[in-house]
Amino acid sequence: MTEPKFTGGLVPVVVVDAGSREVLMVAYADREALDLTRETGFAHYYSRSRKKIWKKGEESGHLQRVLRILVDCDEDTLLYEVEQEGVACHTGHRSCFYRTLDGEEISPRVLDPDEIYGKGGQKG
Amino acid sequence: MTEPKFTGGLVPVVVVDAGSREVLMVAYADREALDLTRETGFAHYYSRSRKKIWKKGEESGHLQRVLRILVDCDEDTLLYEVEQEGVACHTGHRSCFYRTLDGEEISPRVLDPDEIYGKGGQKG
Repeated sequence: MTEPKFTGGLVPVVVVDAGSREVLMVAYADREALDLTRETGFAHYYSRSRKKIWKKGEESGHLQRVLRILVDCDEDTLLYEVEQEGVACHTGHRSCFYRTLDGEEISPRVLDPDEIYGKGGQKG
Repeated sequence: MTEPKFTGGLVPVVVVDAGSREVLMVAYADREALDLTRETGFAHYYSRSRKKIWKKGEESGHLQRVLRILVDCDEDTLLYEVEQEGVACHTGHRSCFYRTLDGEEISPRVLDPDEIYGKGGQKG
């Protein structure tokens, strides 16, 4: 196995829908999150704000089954090809990249965030 | 315009082929690189190793025309949809994500790196 470079303990992960090829999100993994992802087949990340390992969908049920893990030429970025249950974004959009830098929304909200987490719930 | 968050002065940029939707690479932009990208329509990044602004393709001719810039929900990651001239990767692969973490090559080298930069040339 190629050992990715963890900068400050973390490696960025680009997450792509294995079917549509849509970029769903970017998150970060530490060594443990990557190991858990490989062992369980479900995406785990390291939350920089909460400072802990996080299984994607643990709160929302919107799990990511990881079909393949790619590494880039420099070995400092990963790409997960996933089957996304529900939506990737805590806003209820399928992808976190749902608008342009100029503010145009390019893909619709498909779920009400309150339905994902319950009122006052946390992202995940 | 949404002002992205520059962490340590930088924001990660996922670069996607606007036609095939393939993820080509991940790089970093500072404020100036983002402004140059918007002003010129061609991708500029900040090289963390060379510590300077870098126009993608300035050495190789493999420019990236940026058709659209997306920002994610947290406003700390950008996505450039580009028309890629030639190949994105300095190894001669179309994408920098050409192999799995287990070492399987999933897409072929399409150019000889020596032809891209000349022997002893630099990536870009």
